Amino acid sequence: MLLREEYDQIKEETLAYFQQSNITLTNREIEKLEIADFGLNRIREFGLQLIEYINTERCCAKDLVLLPRQTCPEHLHPPVGDSPGKEETFRCRNGTVYLYVPGPNVKNPKAVIPKDKEDTFTVWNEIILNAGEQYTLFPNTLHWFQAGDEGAIISEFSTKSTDENDIFTDSSIKRMPVVE
Amino acid sequence: MLLREEYDQIKEETLAYFQQSNITLTNREIEKLEIADFGLNRIREFGLQLIEYINTERCCAKDLVLLPRQTCPEHLHPPVGDSPGKEETFRCRNGTVYLYVPGPNVKNPKAVIPKDKEDTFTVWNEIILNAGEQYTLFPNTLHWFQAGDEGAIISEFSTKSTDENDIFTDSSIKRMPVVE
Repeated sequence: MLLREEYDQIKEETLAYFQQSNITLTNREIEKLEIADFGLNRIREFGLQLIEYINTERCCAKDLVLLPRQTCPEHLHPPVGDSPGKEETFRCRNGTVYLYVPGPNVKNPKAVIPKDKEDTFTVWNEIILNAGEQYTLFPNTLHWFQAGDEGAIISEFSTKSTDENDIFTDSSIKRMPVVE
Repeated sequence: MLLREEYDQIKEETLAYFQQSNITLTNREIEKLEIADFGLNRIREFGLQLIEYINTERCCAKDLVLLPRQTCPEHLHPPVGDSPGKEETFRCRNGTVYLYVPGPNVKNPKAVIPKDKEDTFTVWNEIILNAGEQYTLFPNTLHWFQAGDEGAIISEFSTKSTDENDIFTDSSIKRMPVVE
C-alpha cells in the first residue's frame, strides 16, 4: 500500500528523470504514471516507475525509471493462451542497470539485495547495461534488475504486456499497485 | 544512389539530432546507421535516417530522424504470409511531424510536396505530432510523413519490420538503399 504523500514524492522524482533525459510526456501520460510497489510497501528498495506509451494485442512500449538502487523483483513472463509469453528488450537510456538472468552466477554482483529478501532472487548471471546498451529477454526467462547509484531510465520494447500474468519468485508480491 | 560524401554529411547531421535529444548510441549502432533515399536520389526531399534497436520475429523498435522538411514517401505494410502486416506506433520525441493517413483531406496541409511528385501522395488526412505525441497505424494503411522546419526525431514501436515488403505509391521507389 502506497500512501498518497509517498506516491506524490516518488512521482516528482520520476518526472525529474524524464526531464533530465529530454523525454517529453503529455499531461495525460503524466497523470497515468504508474508506480509499482509490488505490494511490498518498500518502494525505494523494491519498485518501478513507468509510462506505458502503447500496448496493443501485438506490441508494447514503455519507458521505465528506477530510482537509485531500486530493484524490480525476480519474475518471468509465462505463455498465456495462444501466446508464447512476453518478449522484451531493455534499452538503458541513462544511468546504469544491473540485470540478472539464468546462467553462471557472477562472483561479486554489483546489485545489493536486503538480507531478508535474498532467497527471492535465484538467478545471478549479471548483465551490465550502460546508456545505449540493451538486452533481449525471451519468454519464460527469470530476470530481475537494479539501478546503480544514479538511478536509470530504461526503454522497454516488447510484445503485449499483461502484468497480471507475471510470475514472481517472491510469493508475497502483488503486481497490481494499491494507492491509499 | 547515395554518394559516399553525401552519406557522410547526412550521417553527421543525423548524429547531431540524436545528441541534442540526449539519445546515446553505441559505436556499433552508429556504424550501422541507415540512410534510406528510396532510390530517388533526392535525399533531402525524400529520405529517412534510422537506427534499428531490435527486430525479432515478434517486435521491432527504431529511432528515426527526419531532416527539416524531409519526407518519408507514401506506403503501406501489407499482410505477409501468416502475419497480418506491420503495426506501428510513431512517437514524436522532438520537433514536429506531419503525418498523413486515410480520411478526410485537410484543407491547407502543413506538408509541402514538390510538384513533380504530387501524384504519388494520395492520402491527406493530417495528424500533427509534437514532442510527446504519438499515433498508431494498423497494417495495410497508407501513410506518409514530413518533418517541420526543425526536423524531428521519432520513436517507432512496431511488430516485425520487413521493409522489403512495403508497398509504395510511387512506383519508381526502391526501398533498399544503395551507397556508392
